[in-house]
Amino acid sequence: MNTERIDLDWRLSILENLQGQVEIENIPTRVPGAVQLDIAAHKEWGPYAFGENWKQYLEYEDKYYRYSAQFDKPSLSPGQTLAFISKGIDYEYEIILNEHRLLRHEGMFSFVDIDLTPHLKEEGNLLEILVYPVPKSHNGEADRTQADACVKPAVSYSWDWHPRLVPLGIWDDTFLLVRSEQAILAADHSYSFLDEALTEIKLTIGVETTEKSTGYIQWSLIDNEGKTVAGARHKVTGDRSVFSETIKDVNLWWPHDHGTPYLYTSRLQVFEGEDSVNCLDKHEQKIGFRKTELLMNAGAWDEPSTFPKSRSMPPISLTINNKAIFAKGSNFVNPEIFPGIITDQTYQSLIELAMEANFNILRIWGGGIINKQKFHELCDEMGVMVWQEFPLACNNYVSTEHYLSVLRQEATAIIRRLKGHPSTILWCGGNELFNSWSGMTDQSLALRLLNSLCLEYDPHTPFIPTSPVAGMGHGHYVFRDDGTGQEVYEWMNKSQNTAYTEFGISSPSPVALLQSIIPEGELWPPKKGTSWESHHAFNAWIGDTWLRMDMLTHYFGEIERLNDLVENGQLIQAEGLKYIYEEARRQKPYCSMVLNWCYNEPWPTAANCSIINYPNHPKKAFYEVSKACRPALLSARLFQFMHRPDENLKAGIWVLNDSYDYVSAGEVTVYLQPPDSGQRTKLLTWLPGECEPNTNVQGPMINVPMSFENDGFYTLILESSLQPGMNSQYVIYLRIVTPDEVERPGVLNI
Amino acid sequence: MNTERIDLDWRLSILENLQGQVEIENIPTRVPGAVQLDIAAHKEWGPYAFGENWKQYLEYEDKYYRYSAQFDKPSLSPGQTLAFISKGIDYEYEIILNEHRLLRHEGMFSFVDIDLTPHLKEEGNLLEILVYPVPKSHNGEADRTQADACVKPAVSYSWDWHPRLVPLGIWDDTFLLVRSEQAILAADHSYSFLDEALTEIKLTIGVETTEKSTGYIQWSLIDNEGKTVAGARHKVTGDRSVFSETIKDVNLWWPHDHGTPYLYTSRLQVFEGEDSVNCLDKHEQKIGFRKTELLMNAGAWDEPSTFPKSRSMPPISLTINNKAIFAKGSNFVNPEIFPGIITDQTYQSLIELAMEANFNILRIWGGGIINKQKFHELCDEMGVMVWQEFPLACNNYVSTEHYLSVLRQEATAIIRRLKGHPSTILWCGGNELFNSWSGMTDQSLALRLLNSLCLEYDPHTPFIPTSPVAGMGHGHYVFRDDGTGQEVYEWMNKSQNTAYTEFGISSPSPVALLQSIIPEGELWPPKKGTSWESHHAFNAWIGDTWLRMDMLTHYFGEIERLNDLVENGQLIQAEGLKYIYEEARRQKPYCSMVLNWCYNEPWPTAANCSIINYPNHPKKAFYEVSKACRPALLSARLFQFMHRPDENLKAGIWVLNDSYDYVSAGEVTVYLQPPDSGQRTKLLTWLPGECEPNTNVQGPMINVPMSFENDGFYTLILESSLQPGMNSQYVIYLRIVTPDEVERPGVLNI
Repeated sequence: MNTERIDLDWRLSILENLQGQVEIENIPTRVPGAVQLDIAAHKEWGPYAFGENWKQYLEYEDKYYRYSAQFDKPSLSPGQTLAFISKGIDYEYEIILNEHRLLRHEGMFSFVDIDLTPHLKEEGNLLEILVYPVPKSHNGEADRTQADACVKPAVSYSWDWHPRLVPLGIWDDTFLLVRSEQAILAADHSYSFLDEALTEIKLTIGVETTEKSTGYIQWSLIDNEGKTVAGARHKVTGDRSVFSETIKDVNLWWPHDHGTPYLYTSRLQVFEGEDSVNCLDKHEQKIGFRKTELLMNAGAWDEPSTFPKSRSMPPISLTINNKAIFAKGSNFVNPEIFPGIITDQTYQSLIELAMEANFNILRIWGGGIINKQKFHELCDEMGVMVWQEFPLACNNYVSTEHYLSVLRQEATAIIRRLKGHPSTILWCGGNELFNSWSGMTDQSLALRLLNSLCLEYDPHTPFIPTSPVAGMGHGHYVFRDDGTGQEVYEWMNKSQNTAYTEFGISSPSPVALLQSIIPEGELWPPKKGTSWESHHAFNAWIGDTWLRMDMLTHYFGEIERLNDLVENGQLIQAEGLKYIYEEARRQKPYCSMVLNWCYNEPWPTAANCSIINYPNHPKKAFYEVSKACRPALLSARLFQFMHRPDENLKAGIWVLNDSYDYVSAGEVTVYLQPPDSGQRTKLLTWLPGECEPNTNVQGPMINVPMSFENDGFYTLILESSLQPGMNSQYVIYLRIVTPDEVERPGVLNI
Repeated sequence: MNTERIDLDWRLSILENLQGQVEIENIPTRVPGAVQLDIAAHKEWGPYAFGENWKQYLEYEDKYYRYSAQFDKPSLSPGQTLAFISKGIDYEYEIILNEHRLLRHEGMFSFVDIDLTPHLKEEGNLLEILVYPVPKSHNGEADRTQADACVKPAVSYSWDWHPRLVPLGIWDDTFLLVRSEQAILAADHSYSFLDEALTEIKLTIGVETTEKSTGYIQWSLIDNEGKTVAGARHKVTGDRSVFSETIKDVNLWWPHDHGTPYLYTSRLQVFEGEDSVNCLDKHEQKIGFRKTELLMNAGAWDEPSTFPKSRSMPPISLTINNKAIFAKGSNFVNPEIFPGIITDQTYQSLIELAMEANFNILRIWGGGIINKQKFHELCDEMGVMVWQEFPLACNNYVSTEHYLSVLRQEATAIIRRLKGHPSTILWCGGNELFNSWSGMTDQSLALRLLNSLCLEYDPHTPFIPTSPVAGMGHGHYVFRDDGTGQEVYEWMNKSQNTAYTEFGISSPSPVALLQSIIPEGELWPPKKGTSWESHHAFNAWIGDTWLRMDMLTHYFGEIERLNDLVENGQLIQAEGLKYIYEEARRQKPYCSMVLNWCYNEPWPTAANCSIINYPNHPKKAFYEVSKACRPALLSARLFQFMHRPDENLKAGIWVLNDSYDYVSAGEVTVYLQPPDSGQRTKLLTWLPGECEPNTNVQGPMINVPMSFENDGFYTLILESSLQPGMNSQYVIYLRIVTPDEVERPGVLNI
């Protein structure tokens, strides 16, 4: 191969303005990274996650930054060129070689590929990237609304779980490339199924080559055992070649819980002649074939049933390869405040955890970045479906010609890059755009444009304008509503939604993590105005989110130790989220999807709704959710968490089955275990019989008095005589003396 | 001018098949018209509206048709060409000149413009149009589903108010044109407002000219007094010229009830030189400037109010030139079964009636045609807004490449033609597509394509995918629901919709009309299986629609004369529809629109929901609806139609004001007038004070016993001391003996 990658040694300068004054000159820089990280290293600031250190970064929003690298011209064979390649520079910038401006660009997601050759000197070339200040649509309140006219993650402008820290600079792979005269610049794979049974496809590959290509392009499709199953060789004509091939007996790509995420390798090689074996350039990528649809949810056509009617709810029942798949997953957010430092390993560990959680889908939330290539490769390989949003969230994005043209450019780049990944099963315009706090509507030009671009470039993947659409449940974000006193059990049992695409319950982070971000003196008790607040424990959203000490006190009385706070909070989150997942599954097939808010977090928070702490540490809730997402399990419909001795424990017993297997639980026995770990009481036995594929079975109802003498956490235990892997447990809380009645220590023995 | 129009003398032949046998040869044909009308004339069939005559046409669906015209070559100056122009041939066809096939085309809405010159002979040219059979996606049940793969009005395939009669052939203006060497082929006007106050626009005019154009194009903008207010002259370069002009102090186009529908003339002329006055070709069209938006309905952002939330309702509050306009109108259907015979006068009389009805909007229902140019010109001139649907209705239109490509072609032609009309204020994908009986969803490619094309060609006009969208009320279509016994008052009073875009109440047609379509022997009593049924009195929809004798008997006892049937039926329709319009207005500003089903009808029906009988005869309901749509009026919220003597008459008194004027009704007095025209009783007086622009005022409630001795139609009378034009009346029906209790004559004296 005649291609060669050259990494440059970049330096960074900070400029007060475009014309002028240099504040800091030629400091070392990490590429990819962010200019703020380089400044922090240069100034020897403490970790931005600790205390209030993040506030130091604020004054660097409005500066200009110059990356510069010097290099000598590499030796180029005749016809070879030297290209500058970057997969992402954040956000508005110029690229200058030896004082020639080669590009002025806005947008961090479109790749840069520029031929440097015409302006190269033999020695001492100077390549510069001039990065503009943080884009802001106004200079009023420093909040997310400043992002309503740019295609940049709104989350960086501050969110209820993200500090105000707006990255700038080179954030993805960036290098020089010696390119051969006859090279492949890009390959675009499209396919459609030719038969109902999905055994045969028409695959079209558009190959973009260098202008001077004169040879032949060989295309090969290689199966996962290395066997070439299809191929063709064409003479290059012009700078575009198209292969259009019919492939029979294709192996389909499946989400991991319903089959094998089968991948092929598509290999493109350039040869000089029809029979040459000397490969001049090569391009290889994994591809997979799946049909993805959003079909009407079962029963949704029957609505509305009375006059005046309006329309039926929009479809959100995800169907892969003609099979309805109950989607279980979570909302994935930027795994780093500075996406430049996300590594392959960051993604690897988070996607492995998603597998462990029995998740088959991740929603890439529109407040964050478009992930790097590795993320999508891993989702392809592991069979995790990706609901991909465009970077719009909680704003009324403007309809100016300028914004729409940048959005068109960036969205086109995003679609063309991600559509080749079989895991990309759904496009979405962005987050919460059709709600009052955003203010966009079906008429917003930005969303009509995104729909239109998805149709143009990837017509066979569904598009929804935002989440939630009508019928989708969104929220609540508490275990117990302060206003109504309702617990999660109550509102979930009476909800009837086609999907639950965001709902959250917060918990405090583990003690060790808290100690790593909160100065010792502030650690106990948690107070507003301290690092607790900076890390989202207070004033993040309504009520004292996300710490919710008021609610914990309601259940458990005054809390007096950090450890008790964390344990009780994590228990509440775990029991609540588990319940929502299982109740959503009970509402199948009308309900087809369940995703909690949120999966991970971009920095260590003091309290948050995530089920994984930064960077990849599961909370208690993670493990309970994981159990709730097992393909088949025993489950209890519950009605309340805290019981008084004069109240009954009510629970409906179910078998939940999302798999396409017949499931036999044998005899199901239900016990109640007291908090002192004493003798458990058998409440009932039930023979559910064989459970049909992808179908739940409703069983008997328990209704027993909680007239016990010991208060604390009882455990409702559901056991299968045949499949212990289906067993489940729920915490039932008995409170004999209420917090209003007597002061008592905060935590109860579990 | 060097252009000249030549009309041809067409003949029609009917072919059994493509190769073959001629069934009928060279009969006279009406152009524009339909092949079926020519066959009927040739065979001397009776009128298709009478009795069961329409059934004779069925056997001609699957034939081929050949139009042919002979002509000698006209004298052409050097550079002149002879073009064949047609504004519409229905549906799939070939155009052949002297045995050269010049075009094969599918689609009745895209214009044809072909240069015949290359194949012209001096004498005896033969121009042929070969029309294919009625397109059908299947040969099963002969119903609308056969239209789910073509861009042809589904209504022709039979509807609950339209017989199965599927037109074919030349249906719009068709002629030869001697075209000068330098001619204007098309002009495309686009504009956007440059200021919030809408005083200044940037107007862009793309002019397409013949390839050989070498001269200058003069553009002039002429106001409605004939004064040229802007202009420019450009040298033609290539076959496209673009004018881009800023116009200040523009007069805005307004719907007639809110201002002047101001129109300008845009004139394009071709000249040889920069200063020439000898005009080589000229194109003139009326244009108008308005801003049209769908904004959120008042209060809609507050929904949903509880968790789990989904999204807020889509916006349907029509805003013209920054002013919210309560939209009052109706659903316009094909005014002829054979659109080829629609004349300018057809449109003129129907749009004049819309003005008389105080309507400011007509919804062009997606089951029908795209109207001819004159319709849109008249709506522009008279200030009637047009909600324009694409020809999709009540089907799940296929996603095949073929259908989508024909849809793309036809929709592009439709948008480009109609977007220049200021009256086109809303695009809509089609009728009832998101309901179970259609089966399309937000994911349907046809609708995503239409959204995308409207965005591309007319981004500043709103688009909705279908009617109803969420929040819009749709139906009911009866005065009294058979199942629940609810009357229209009950369901309207408890509905809360952002718009009511279809609702209907049927009535029988007047006696004279019935006599003209139903054979004398079938006229009384109305029976199933007779011409009554063919004309939609029975088995058209649920229940015995549209005659509803069962309901009339419920109210009025056994009906024994045709005249009584008609009078009672028309009264019910009039009172019911009036009520819906007024109640929708009461629900303003959350409600923003009210359109009944339907305005007109394509042939004389025996019973139908229309408020105008074919072709242009208003029913009683028309006049009552017209009163309900007055800009300002006194109105009563009612609760029931039929009262027993032990029941109270309850009525809430209101002032409704959709105008932007302050309205003073003075003293409002409410009376009840007995059926014997005896002394009216004063029920109350009320001083509503000054009513603010576009605002209603709720007044007192009447609650009086109906303990009278005379049964029959009482009249509730609302009188204004200052503005008699605001007075209103409502029929209150007192039934002392119910139909179940005693047999009695059908109609009561009014």
